[in-house]
Amino acid sequence: MYYIAVYDVAQKRVGKMLKLFRKYLHHIQNSVFEGELSNADYMRLKSEIKRFYKDEEDSVIFFSMNGKYLEKEIVGVEKKSSSNFI
Amino acid sequence: MYYIAVYDVAQKRVGKMLKLFRKYLHHIQNSVFEGELSNADYMRLKSEIKRFYKDEEDSVIFFSMNGKYLEKEIVGVEKKSSSNFI
Repeated sequence: MYYIAVYDVAQKRVGKMLKLFRKYLHHIQNSVFEGELSNADYMRLKSEIKRFYKDEEDSVIFFSMNGKYLEKEIVGVEKKSSSNFI
Repeated sequence: MYYIAVYDVAQKRVGKMLKLFRKYLHHIQNSVFEGELSNADYMRLKSEIKRFYKDEEDSVIFFSMNGKYLEKEIVGVEKKSSSNFI
């Protein structure tokens, strides 16, 4: 499946979260990532997140879809090199 | 179409951007919005963004898709009341 992931976590965990997400997905903006993940990798990523995130403070949202139905438009500067998967 | 929009803009324009996006979409996390938009509203939103965003500093990404192909999973706290459109 193709994923868009966004996180909003306490400042002290931002670096760790960034590093973790970069292992699995393409960093396209601030706290936004995208890319194709196997089901196994998706499960692995979620279990790694759960190892250090704080339930009451942090939030991660995964949108999943079949990549062929997804379109993307960037208004303004492309701050990160976006993937070419779509 | 169903949209997910994320922005990364200079601090001084965050409030204005937030207010604008709230007119059109559901605020689900920090700088992340989602919702259904007609083509006319999508064009209107983009033209409103372009009135005050700065090309060299700001970035807005729109992902668009047919809502029926999109799934969403939240890990951790649901910081904003998410829409029930999906």
